[in-house]
Formats: sequence, C-alpha cells, structure tokens
Amino acid sequence: MNLLQIEAIVKQALNEDLGHGRDITSELTIPSDAQAKAALRVRKPGVLAGLIVGLSAFTLVDGDFEITIHANDGDALEADQIVAEIEGPARSLLTAERTALNFIQQLSGIATLTNQYVKKVKGTDAKITDTRKTIPNLRALQKYAVRCGGGVNHRSGLDDAILIKDNHIATAGGIKAALDAVQDAGHTLKIEIEVDTIMQLEEVLKHGGANIVLLDNMNVATLKKAVALCKGKIVTEASGGVTLETVKAVAETGVDYISVGALTHSAPALDMGLDIDL
Amino acid sequence: MNLLQIEAIVKQALNEDLGHGRDITSELTIPSDAQAKAALRVRKPGVLAGLIVGLSAFTLVDGDFEITIHANDGDALEADQIVAEIEGPARSLLTAERTALNFIQQLSGIATLTNQYVKKVKGTDAKITDTRKTIPNLRALQKYAVRCGGGVNHRSGLDDAILIKDNHIATAGGIKAALDAVQDAGHTLKIEIEVDTIMQLEEVLKHGGANIVLLDNMNVATLKKAVALCKGKIVTEASGGVTLETVKAVAETGVDYISVGALTHSAPALDMGLDIDL
Amino acid sequence: MNLLQIEAIVKQALNEDLGHGRDITSELTIPSDAQAKAALRVRKPGVLAGLIVGLSAFTLVDGDFEITIHANDGDALEADQIVAEIEGPARSLLTAERTALNFIQQLSGIATLTNQYVKKVKGTDAKITDTRKTIPNLRALQKYAVRCGGGVNHRSGLDDAILIKDNHIATAGGIKAALDAVQDAGHTLKIEIEVDTIMQLEEVLKHGGANIVLLDNMNVATLKKAVALCKGKIVTEASGGVTLETVKAVAETGVDYISVGALTHSAPALDMGLDIDL
Amino acid sequence: MNLLQIEAIVKQALNEDLGHGRDITSELTIPSDAQAKAALRVRKPGVLAGLIVGLSAFTLVDGDFEITIHANDGDALEADQIVAEIEGPARSLLTAERTALNFIQQLSGIATLTNQYVKKVKGTDAKITDTRKTIPNLRALQKYAVRCGGGVNHRSGLDDAILIKDNHIATAGGIKAALDAVQDAGHTLKIEIEVDTIMQLEEVLKHGGANIVLLDNMNVATLKKAVALCKGKIVTEASGGVTLETVKAVAETGVDYISVGALTHSAPALDMGLDIDL
Amino acid sequence: MNLLQIEAIVKQALNEDLGHGRDITSELTIPSDAQAKAALRVRKPGVLAGLIVGLSAFTLVDGDFEITIHANDGDALEADQIVAEIEGPARSLLTAERTALNFIQQLSGIATLTNQYVKKVKGTDAKITDTRKTIPNLRALQKYAVRCGGGVNHRSGLDDAILIKDNHIATAGGIKAALDAVQDAGHTLKIEIEVDTIMQLEEVLKHGGANIVLLDNMNVATLKKAVALCKGKIVTEASGGVTLETVKAVAETGVDYISVGALTHSAPALDMGLDIDL
Amino acid sequence: MNLLQIEAIVKQALNEDLGHGRDITSELTIPSDAQAKAALRVRKPGVLAGLIVGLSAFTLVDGDFEITIHANDGDALEADQIVAEIEGPARSLLTAERTALNFIQQLSGIATLTNQYVKKVKGTDAKITDTRKTIPNLRALQKYAVRCGGGVNHRSGLDDAILIKDNHIATAGGIKAALDAVQDAGHTLKIEIEVDTIMQLEEVLKHGGANIVLLDNMNVATLKKAVALCKGKIVTEASGGVTLETVKAVAETGVDYISVGALTHSAPALDMGLDIDL
Repeated sequence: MNLLQIEAIVKQALNEDLGHGRDITSELTIPSDAQAKAALRVRKPGVLAGLIVGLSAFTLVDGDFEITIHANDGDALEADQIVAEIEGPARSLLTAERTALNFIQQLSGIATLTNQYVKKVKGTDAKITDTRKTIPNLRALQKYAVRCGGGVNHRSGLDDAILIKDNHIATAGGIKAALDAVQDAGHTLKIEIEVDTIMQLEEVLKHGGANIVLLDNMNVATLKKAVALCKGKIVTEASGGVTLETVKAVAETGVDYISVGALTHSAPALDMGLDIDL
Repeated sequence: MNLLQIEAIVKQALNEDLGHGRDITSELTIPSDAQAKAALRVRKPGVLAGLIVGLSAFTLVDGDFEITIHANDGDALEADQIVAEIEGPARSLLTAERTALNFIQQLSGIATLTNQYVKKVKGTDAKITDTRKTIPNLRALQKYAVRCGGGVNHRSGLDDAILIKDNHIATAGGIKAALDAVQDAGHTLKIEIEVDTIMQLEEVLKHGGANIVLLDNMNVATLKKAVALCKGKIVTEASGGVTLETVKAVAETGVDYISVGALTHSAPALDMGLDIDL
Repeated sequence: MNLLQIEAIVKQALNEDLGHGRDITSELTIPSDAQAKAALRVRKPGVLAGLIVGLSAFTLVDGDFEITIHANDGDALEADQIVAEIEGPARSLLTAERTALNFIQQLSGIATLTNQYVKKVKGTDAKITDTRKTIPNLRALQKYAVRCGGGVNHRSGLDDAILIKDNHIATAGGIKAALDAVQDAGHTLKIEIEVDTIMQLEEVLKHGGANIVLLDNMNVATLKKAVALCKGKIVTEASGGVTLETVKAVAETGVDYISVGALTHSAPALDMGLDIDL
Repeated sequence: MNLLQIEAIVKQALNEDLGHGRDITSELTIPSDAQAKAALRVRKPGVLAGLIVGLSAFTLVDGDFEITIHANDGDALEADQIVAEIEGPARSLLTAERTALNFIQQLSGIATLTNQYVKKVKGTDAKITDTRKTIPNLRALQKYAVRCGGGVNHRSGLDDAILIKDNHIATAGGIKAALDAVQDAGHTLKIEIEVDTIMQLEEVLKHGGANIVLLDNMNVATLKKAVALCKGKIVTEASGGVTLETVKAVAETGVDYISVGALTHSAPALDMGLDIDL
Repeated sequence: MNLLQIEAIVKQALNEDLGHGRDITSELTIPSDAQAKAALRVRKPGVLAGLIVGLSAFTLVDGDFEITIHANDGDALEADQIVAEIEGPARSLLTAERTALNFIQQLSGIATLTNQYVKKVKGTDAKITDTRKTIPNLRALQKYAVRCGGGVNHRSGLDDAILIKDNHIATAGGIKAALDAVQDAGHTLKIEIEVDTIMQLEEVLKHGGANIVLLDNMNVATLKKAVALCKGKIVTEASGGVTLETVKAVAETGVDYISVGALTHSAPALDMGLDIDL
Repeated sequence: MNLLQIEAIVKQALNEDLGHGRDITSELTIPSDAQAKAALRVRKPGVLAGLIVGLSAFTLVDGDFEITIHANDGDALEADQIVAEIEGPARSLLTAERTALNFIQQLSGIATLTNQYVKKVKGTDAKITDTRKTIPNLRALQKYAVRCGGGVNHRSGLDDAILIKDNHIATAGGIKAALDAVQDAGHTLKIEIEVDTIMQLEEVLKHGGANIVLLDNMNVATLKKAVALCKGKIVTEASGGVTLETVKAVAETGVDYISVGALTHSAPALDMGLDIDL
C-alpha cells in the first residue's frame, strides 16, 4: 500500500481515538517537555506485518520521534523479540501508542495465521490466497498482511477481476451465457468462474473462455477429480470452509490455489506491547 | 451509532469494494431489470449485531430494495435462522452483498464472543467491558456490538474519560502527583487509575480523587484482597489476559468490571450467508 | 486540541478564504521573492488563546516562515503588546493574515470573557464552565479557549457524559425512571441530571445514582437552599442566564460549577492586528 | 448558500456534537417509538436568519419530521414569537436540538446586529457591508445572515475581488504601480484600493483604474472631504472601528458603503429555545 | 461507474462552480417559484455518453425535477436531436445547467472520437482500447465513455493489471528477470509486457509467463511480423501515435488491440446546449 | 492556484491511479533501493503550463526526489526541449510518472491553444478570455493554464460575478427588470449582461447599471456596430463559436474581450514524455 494511502488511514484512526480532540490524561499528567524511550516487543511468536504503518502513528502525531527498526514485515518473530525502538516526546508517544499497536497487532495476526496455512501446504504446489471477506475499510492493509505471511492475493474488489459465481450463472442463463457475456470486458482482466459439480466443470472446460475455475465446497475426492480434469487447461482454486486441519489434504489434491476467508475475517491479533522507559 | 455516521462508514466500505467504480461481473452477466430475493441466514449459532448497519449497504447502492427484518441486534440466533429477507434489483443485490455481510459477520462475531464472557460471569456482580484495543476505524461499531452481546462499554477514546496508567504515574512523579494533576479536568469526566500492587492501591485509596481503580494483571488471590479493600469506596475493574477459562474466577473475586481486549481485537466472524433465489 | 485536528480545521479555513484558489491581489501586486516582517499585536487588553492555531495558517500556506512567540495561550495581555513576530515571503504572509487573525481574535475573545467571569467568582469555590452552545464546527477550539481563560470544560458532546434534562425526565416517566435507565451506560461516564425545583432535587438525592445535579434557572435564594441540601452528597452546577452582573451572587451560594453559554456563543472578538514592516 | 453546501456544513456540526457517535442520554431514557412536538421560540426581539439551515439538522438526523414554518429569514421577530414547529421522533428531536439552535441563534444574532446598523443609517444613502473578519468555516452563512439583516456583502474571499491594501501598495512600490499591476486581472473583477489620507486619495483619482476606494480610519471631517472628492467618480467605502454610536455620523458624510467587522466577529447570539411538548 | 461514485464526483463539480456558495445571478433575477422546461439538444452529430451522470446535477441541486430521457448512452445522435427534457424550478435549472453540460459534452466527445476509431477498424479483428493518459480525477467516467463509443477498456490504474514497460525491464535486469518477478503477483492479475523489437518479442515468447504483449511504436511491417509470431500464443496490443489516418493499416496487421491515448486526453467536447423554454 | 489546493487535487489524482493502493508492477520488478534519473521533454512545440503542479506528484509520492527546473510556466517551448529533470527512487518515479504527465500535458495543451488565439489577435486591442465550459473538477487549474497562454480569465464560477443571460432576462421580465434586480448585489461584484441584438444593446445602454455587455453570436458586421455603440460607455465581450479562423476578424471589430469555450473544453494535450535513464 502506498504511503499516501497509509497516511490517510492512520490519520483517520488517530482521529477516531482522539474523538473531540484531546488525550486528556497525557496532557494533564505529563510535562510538555518530557521525553521517553519505548521498545515495541512481541509477546508471542508470530509473523510481523504493518510495522511501518503502525509506527507512522507516532510521526503523524509529532514530528520529533526517532525510530529504530529491528525487524521487517514478513519476519518470523520469537516471543519477547524487540521489533522497533521509539524515542521522543512522552506525551505524543502515549497519545499514539494504542493506534500504533492496533494496526501492528491486527496485521501481524493476519500474517501469522496466513503463515500457519502456508506451512501446512509446504511440499505441495498449492498457494494460499485470501478473499473479499475482509474487515470493512481495512482491506488493502489486510491483503498486504496476507502477502507478509507468505500468501498471495485474490482480487482486491469488484473491479479488478471477473468472478462469475453461482448467482451470476443462474441470472445470466447458464454457464455458457455467463462466460460469453464477459468475453469483451477487456483484455487486461482475468475471468474466473465458480463451479460446484464436476458436470458444471466439464461445461466450463468445454466452452472455454475462463482463466481460473473456482471449485467451491467440494470434498477432497471430488476436488481431486476436478483438478485432474483441469491440469494444463485452466488454473484451479479450491474454496469453502478450509481450516488448518483440512488444508493439507486439500493441497494434496494438486489444486493451484486455496482461498481462506478466515485469514482476514477471523485472525486473532498478535500480542504485542510497548515497554516504555521514561 | 447514529445513522449519519453509519451511512458514512458503509459508503466508505462500498467504495473500497468498488475500487475504480464497477462491479464488472454483475454489470455484464445480469440484465439491468433482473430482480432477486435473498435470505440472510446465520450458519452457526450466535448473537446478532450490526443488522441495520449491514443492510444499509443495499439501500445505499440502490433505492429500490424491500427489506424485511426477522431478528434484532442482541437476539440469540440458532444455526440456519433467517434474520432478514431482501428483495430488489439483482445487480445491486450482488454488488452490495459482500459489504453487507462483512459488517454483520464482524459485529455479530463480537456480540457472540462478548455474550460467551457474559454468560460465564452470570451469578456474580461482575460486568464485562471492552477496551481501546479495537480494529482501526471500526471502534464505534465494535463497541456497539459489545453492547449487543451484553457487555458494557469502557471509554470511547482518549477524550471521554481519564485513565492514568503506569507510564502516566511514572512521568507525573507518582500516584499523588498524577491524581492531583487531573482534579480540575472537568466535573463531567470520570477518573480511573491503574495499579499493579496492593501498595499502590492503598496509596490511591488514601489519597482519594479517583472514581475507578484498574487492577492490572493481578492473580486471583491478590485481586480478591484488592477488591475487599475497595468495597464501598471505589469502583473496581480487573484487566490483563482474562480468558473464557479464567473469567469466572476473576468475577468471583467480587470485582465490578472485567475488561477484555479480545472482544474487539480477536473475535472470529460469525458465519452467515445470503441465499439468493433468483 | 491535537495538532492533527488543528491542521485540518485551519486548512479548511484557508480554503474558505481562497475560494476558487487565488489571493489575486497579492499575486499581482507583490513580487514572488519579496520578504516581509510582521508583528502580531493586541490592540485591547485581554487573555490570549489560539496563538499556535492561528500562526499555523502561515506555515500551512508556505513552509518558509520564521516565527517568534512572545506570549503563550492563557497569558494576560496589555494593550499594544506584541504576541508574536512572523518573517517570511510577503505574498504568503498577506494570504494567511486574515485566517490567522480570525482564529486568534475569536479564541482570545472567549478566553478574555471567560476570565472576566473567573475573576468575578474569585474568593468563592465556584468554577466557571462552558456549554454545548458553541459556534458550529468550532467547539473543540472554543472549549480550549475557555480553559485558557481559567474556566473548566463541561462535556464535549452528546457522547462523553450523560445529562438528563427536563425533556428526558418527562419522556422516561419521571426522575427515578430516567436515573434507572442510565445506570448501566458504562462505568466511565458521569451522570448529571437537571432539576428545576427543590422537590425534584430531593427526589434525585433520595434516589441516588447521579454524580452531578444541574440546578436550572433557580433564583439565588432557592439555589442556596439547594446547594445546602447537596453538600457532601453530589456535585452542584448552576445554569440559566448567568451574567457578569449576577455571577458573583450565584457563586456565593456555594455552588460548585456555574455554566455560562455566553462564553462560547456571544464573546466579542479581541481586537488584534498584524503590523507589517515590508 | 446552496442546499448542497448547507447539508455538508450541518452534517459536520452534527458529527461534531455526536463525537464517537451516540446521544447516549436520549438513547437510554427515551423509548425508540416516542413522538414529540416542539415549538422554536425566540426569547428576545431580533431578526431571523438561518431558519432552514438550522431546521435541516432535524431532517438530516431523521427522515420522519414534519416541520411547519411560521416566519422567514429576514423577518423582524418579537419576543416569544414562535418561528417554527417540529413534530417527530422524540429521540432524534433531542439529538438535533442543540445543533439546530446553534446555527439559528448565531445567524439571527448577526442579522439582528446588522439590522441595528442599517436602521441607524436610514435616511442616508449609505449601505452597511461586512468584511472577511468572520468566524472560521462559517463565512458563507454569516454573509447570508448579513443580507437577512439588510446589509450587503463585501467580497467573499481573496479570489472574487481585488482589494489593494496599504501593504500591497508598499510592496508594489506605490499606488500607481499597484493599480497598474492589477489592470489585466480580468474584466469580471472589481478593483478596490485602500487609502489613509487625502493625498493618497488624490493620487488614486488622478491615476484611475480603481472601481472603489476604501477610506480607512478617517475621522468624519476628513471622510467628508474625501467623499466630496470622489462623488461621481468612484464608489466610496468607509472602514475602521465604526460602532452603533458613530455609524450615523459616518453615513452622513455621504459615503456609499460602511464596512463593519463586528457584524460577523462579535455579534452576540439571539436568544432562542425549543419548547418541547412530549 | 456506480451511482455512489457518480454522485460524489458531480457534487464536487457543483461545489466547484458554486465556489463561495451562491448562483448570485439566478438568485436575484429569478423568482423562487418560477418553473422552467428545457430541452437538452445535441448541436453536432456524435455518440452520447454520460447522460445520467450529467442529469444528476439537476437532481442533486434540487429534488423537484422531472426528467424525460429520449436517448441512451451509446446511441448515435444526429445534429439537433433532443436527448432529454428537464422540467422544474427555474433557478435550480440554471444553477445546474453548466455542470450538467460540462459532463455530458466531455464524455460524449470521448464516445464520439472512440466511435470514429472503432468504425475505421470495422471488418478487422482489432479492438480499440484506451490508456491511463486520462484527465486527472475523471478517469472512471472517461473509460465509461470509451465503452459507450464501442471501445474496450485497458487497465484502470496501477493496481488492476501488471504492465511491464521498458523502464521496468531495464531496472529489473532484462525481460526474463522482469517476467519472473511478477509470476507470483496473484492468479487474478493479467501480465502484459512491452517490447520495441522483434528480438525482444522472441525473448518474451520463449520465456513465457505473459498474457499480453504490447508492441510499442512499431511500423506496420514490423507489427505484421510481430503479430504473426504471436498468433495463438499471446494476445497482442499495438500502441504509439496511432491516429484516425493510420489506425486501419495497424488493424489490418491482425493485431488484437490498438490503444489510443488521444481518446481520453485530446477528445474535443461534443457541442450540446440546453434550450430553455420559460 | 494555491499550493494547498494543488496538493489536494494531485493527491486525489494519485489515489485515482493507485486504486486499491499499489503500483504492483514497479513494486515487483524494481528493487526498493534503485535510483533513477529522468528528463521531462516536450515532443511538440507549445506553451508550458502546470509544471509545478505536475512535478508535485513525485514529491507527494516520495520525499526523496531532487528536481531541477529548466523552464517556467508560460514559456514557449521548442520540440524536444527538456523542461525539468527528476532524480530519485526509481519505484516512486514510475509510480508518479503518469499522473505528473497527465497534469502537465492537459494544462500545457490549454496554454498552447490559448496562445494560438492570442497570437491571432496581436495588433488589436482584444483580449482572449475563457468560459465556465471547463472539465469538471479541473477548472482552477485550467484557468491558470489560460493565463499561462496569455489569456485573461472570465469569472471563476456562479459566485464571483453577475452574468445575466437570455434566460435570466426572460424570467426576470426583461432587461430593465433584470438589471434592477442585481443592483444591490454588492459593490464588489461586476455586472455583465448578454444581448443578442442591437435593440437589446440599446436598451442596456439606455438603462445603465451594467459593467460589461456580452455580445452573443453576432456576425462581424453587427458586432462592429455594437462595439461602436459601446465605446467609452461599457466593456464589450464577444462570444459564440469563435475559432482560430474567425478570431482575427472578430478582434478587428474593436471588441475588448473574446471568450472562447474551446480553450478549456477541447484543447488537445501537448505531447510530452519522461525519458528515464536508469
């Protein structure tokens, strides 16, 4: 995500926390010239994501911080590892603290969960990908965190790829009609189509005109059969209730991509804290 | 949350999904005059939150929807229960679908988790409360979801209550200095102070000037002792790594409030779907 | 008010003055490389507020200003005192001049009026507080100015304290019902309730559950009686048409807070000017 | 002011009052289906301004209000006159009340003060006009209120007319240089120039190229002389510390326009209230 | 483009025209209750685009318009054809007139020019496509107009497809390195690569990993040779200075797509007017 | 245009190009520490406009650019002339390239076309002026470009001058009524009125009260007659379908201003490019 957009989203979050405009507690208890040092420390092992995004909360609140980075997004972290040190005005440090942590913990939580899936499918050709099941107004950052965890991104929105789902097929009047309808959408757009059965898949393969087939909610046996039909003809993606327990078996069917909604809608935050040394 | 602010945040989320501006797939595969009916169904049991917020995605995209509500925020839902029915233009229905679900699933996930904590402390006087450990730019809605789940809200931001933490105490020059510093902040603001030890607590009680004491990271035995010292003098709040496993024991110390960060930073989404009948 | 929010509001004001985008007069009459020095001078005695806010207009228009501060917000100023000196590009100085002055004069006007009330109640225990009767979209800065003048702030909005007024009581079904309804609003929120008569006050005191009582539009004799009933039990606030003439008598009743709408809705601007030395 | 811009500014003010998003008191004490009727009543005599602007606060918060207008902007009001009646949901009525009143009281205060000046100069040819000494981010509405009070507007900002002040003259290298510099600014822009002395005025008249001369801080005798020199040649405007006491004498010099900064920077609010009948 | 985004961009344009907030002329010369009827008429033949976008200017300014549509976007128009009739408040009609026309004329100009290119390549397999050489902040609407004219859209921005240009190749260390670098970007993104010579093309074809090849600035002979090499292997796009004079020869090389920057950066407006019948 | 507003509009354009937030191609193919040098070169002769505006795209994306300017807005450029050199991070350079060029090419196109009109009327007293027929949301910059090309600006919007057109006259009840209606609009606003015939012009001249007369769609002979009637009495402006072919004859009628809509609605972009030396 570009810095221009990071700045905008972090400012919005700072304003959310400041409400009517003041960190009253810090303003009243901390002398305006007090300085502080703080260490951003991870409390549990995980994968880092959003460090620069979160730290920008400090510099947006106050120009006078010195920040030292000890780890990079995508790094595997051990418990108690220090990822950054921040030095500057004590008041502003406490004002920005929560916003900074909220970003880094959320995004590192996603990277950590993604990485668990990625490790599970190691040794297969499958790649872990995300969905549009994201937390409202945080999608671009969440998808960045998926990349930090070793995943690859699915489309960003309704506008950057064509994904024909069951309802589109039904309204369009069938698989052929739906695929025909999108052929002139533009040569720079990929076309993906969802199928629930082998019969539907065969119709897609016969008709052509799709780049990717989404094999939705198939059991492992059916999936295996479907993947075999597709090899060398079309990219395959499996989706539907895949968990850390089931992902390996899904990957072993030979499918190219496995999409997991939980990466972005249900990842627990990674526990982190700011140890301040006043 | 006021409708004015709901509308703004839902519009922002729709724009996030629309990106450069088009739901290309629906535009190309669905006739502009096609109508559709859909049932919003919960797939797992849980507590509903954010129904009106999420449904507003449909009406913001298109004025022509008819929506029937079958459940209200705060209701306990059984698996497969229909919570609302939506009827209107098929294209717009599919355009708004994901944004609507993203809101309702996130917020119902929070209400559901909150409710699990609330049930655990049933029979005690303890109330479950949230924190500022929220997902950036979603705080007001997340705190609303906590209320739907039976929790009560802690402060909304840095501006609507005073919360003197360990770092404020250290910089201010001790508990007394910190409490003195905030006495003239305004008569409409509550004052809360964090203590880590019984000794600190005794200093707070002796000095006076606080409405609430935050008993941070104490074990159950210490907490019990602390609560006993406070009874009738000051409101008590326990915080620090409380889980569904430990919350009951914490509540049985007699503490008034138990704050749980996980309610808003780590609640998994409640599984829901839109079954469309074209 | 945080610098992040100050910057936003001052930018909005600069854009308001620039309209379609140009200070045509300065652009055409002043060479682009002309430098100027200016002294910001108060013309009448008063209390300073908003100096940094106003001066930020210069730095937001042009990065090349050097500014020297000779007084701080909250200082009592004598007529003709210089509060700051600004040196930099002549064009930008003239472009930002009016916006800078509009902020500082408005806010210093409020601080000055507040301070006149504060001086009148000197020797009593009463504090002067503001209201939500503020000028639209300037509230946070106006409330800051009240603090500069020696006042304390009442709540910032509808969201950061509970204030049960006569209409709430009537709709809720009486004082008890209204107080009961707000008891679970959250432990970090203060509860204030308005009463017009001694009888209502007695009901509030008997029922409990409020932190502050707003004694509305009572004459001095009634107020005295009311305050006597409240001492040691509940914080008291007097409101309703208090003027510089009547405030002392109100304060002498022993009331804790006196709220004055005029501080923010009717304070005349403090006369100031920018003496430019080209 | 166009409705599009009124809606934006009133929404901003509602959001300012709602802060983190809730009118907690009304939400908890008032049943969601309670209805209320209210009469907007002026408490002191004055001139109405901003009625539609203020009342839009109700309809922006809730679509279900019925509003009856009993007076129009520009009308002279007697004490206790009802200017509008509002009927609708009790909760929303109380949520929007303060924002609505803040707009109408501020703007009616300006219209009332303007009208006092206008009445003082009755019988002369002088018109009362405003300045850019306005309250930040409220200028367009304040200038509208000036018109409601019988005044005429000076320029709206730095972009819609040329006003060469003393500092522009000094930097440009004199009156002639300054006037020459703006001659090609565009045929749709008026050119005004400030003079402090008769000598300067004579230079302006001799050189030509200005549409209006601003006679700044002249005493009545000098002003009379200046006006005599200008008659039939150039429009005249007097400015500088004009008060309700001095405005008549200034008008009797024959000057065309008298600009008064106090109209917009120091007008006290007109006392109004919403009498609610639940 | 979604109505949500159309509304935002048209509001911005109305505010641009309203400046400090008033259509002064209409406000002063037209009675507030005057009604008017107007016919939107094209003055020159062309292809319509942006009709709904432009007409929304009327409804955004005033809710009381009745609009009848006589043509649809994409229709070929004859000179003097009426495309819509608008009936409603005369003041608002004149306020919105220019903004409405500015949108429709710009966008119809693009559709008209695009259509001229499309007609030139009739009988070949080539499709006309646009570029990112658009007018700042109008891209989504301009690309919509290209579709109205019979063109297809290239990518919408830097985020929705990969386009490796000469500079990317040079910095990445050659064609292979560049193609390898983007293979894991995500399965929903198309990969396009620019080549200037047959030798570069052969390297691309040999290496694989691209979906589209951009044949930049090749003369017709070279282009023909390049297209022949690509047939059946990769989609081809020609770009670089293509004009209405040269496009047919380019198309006859058998290339799949021809991108033309002029469609969006240099299309003259289509002449239209609003004939008002008061 | 002020830098504050330039920054806002360029940020909006960068966000338009970045869409969901990433320049994927540059991010993947260019090492994060790669540096690049680029020369901004004009490909065809023309007049420069918008250089600083466009170059700000680079500095807004990344703080680390060094930019050297070799020409100024308003300069006549020869083909292949270098107007600026940019040195800095290669990734950011490629990210900002298109946005920068889109601004400079559009605005230089306008300056170039304006200058062609200006040269045609050389030797006459006529000045070339623009209209409100601008591209939505780009007006202030387009009008700046007109000035760079040697033109003068007409009014900026509906708010900064009065222009009574045929429809205003008709609704107001004739020329006299319309002119009377605007006399008290404010002394800082110019009044212009449109006439189509000599008879109407005579009515305007007889009645007085206008500063400028817009002679609309008159042929050269009528225009000459009209101008003769106006000399010394009122400023004249000719409008209506003036082209590069006809403008000289129009100018020779002695008219003061000639307004040309095509300057801003139909100017082709000036061809420019960024030659990057990696």
